[in-house]
Amino acid sequence: MVILGIDPGIASVGYGVVKFEGNRFTPIDYATFTTKADKPLPERLRLIYEFILKLIDTYKVDVMAVEELFFNTNVKTAITVGHGRGIALLAGSMSGIEVYEYTPLQVKQAVVGYGRADKNQVQQMVKVMLNLKAVPKPDDTADALAIAICHAHSSMSRLPK
Amino acid sequence: MVILGIDPGIASVGYGVVKFEGNRFTPIDYATFTTKADKPLPERLRLIYEFILKLIDTYKVDVMAVEELFFNTNVKTAITVGHGRGIALLAGSMSGIEVYEYTPLQVKQAVVGYGRADKNQVQQMVKVMLNLKAVPKPDDTADALAIAICHAHSSMSRLPK
Repeated sequence: MVILGIDPGIASVGYGVVKFEGNRFTPIDYATFTTKADKPLPERLRLIYEFILKLIDTYKVDVMAVEELFFNTNVKTAITVGHGRGIALLAGSMSGIEVYEYTPLQVKQAVVGYGRADKNQVQQMVKVMLNLKAVPKPDDTADALAIAICHAHSSMSRLPK
Repeated sequence: MVILGIDPGIASVGYGVVKFEGNRFTPIDYATFTTKADKPLPERLRLIYEFILKLIDTYKVDVMAVEELFFNTNVKTAITVGHGRGIALLAGSMSGIEVYEYTPLQVKQAVVGYGRADKNQVQQMVKVMLNLKAVPKPDDTADALAIAICHAHSSMSRLPK
């Protein structure tokens, strides 16, 4: 199963493509896609949309996992990030793959086993589980990989026993 | 010039297609597109996206005008509506048409000539300017038509004198 984890946004979209087979993870591609603030918003959204469509196609992604947004941000930020999150969900739907959504709490619980884990703990677990030499930078990239790992664990626990 | 006004959302997307020529308006198509709450969010976004793409294509829309969101809503609503607004802007960008954004204040000023106009005043002006027999229902439809009218007026004032 090839999982695409997305940490949504407009200026920065973290993504992590991970293969999960036989309870083992193989990182395939991970980074943060950025758009410039001096471009019109519709164009930035188009760039994000086309980038995610291409990721799904290139790596034959089976399933997408997208982080739900924190609700403790301000309303203006919430609207902006909401635009970017909508684009990510749409790209999954238009590609005909399954799309799952996870809260930050679910991600922490799945990756660290503890819902109140801090950012550093999550990043160290991502590094260890994916057998990386260093914590992926920036944070958005690590977050996206954590979401992909969260989906893998959740799908395992949904399997028939 | 064929203008598509959009009052963005997820459950309800108001739209108004209006032809503006020689300082005269002709309403072409206007209503509210709805998606059901029991469908997954990515699918609802896809339905909205495909619907707007089809509107643009069917009516040879030249320009899209999308309302900016109120910032006095709660954060959860802001995120949700932000998803829908992002989809609308993307549909315009993917269709290669120009996309403009107007605040509620700009819409009221353009339609009624008065930024503190109430909803009823805006709706009555929409009815008169488009020569309709009644105020379009629901409110989202009337709002979308008001946004289209706002764009027509704004584009007039940008013309060289």
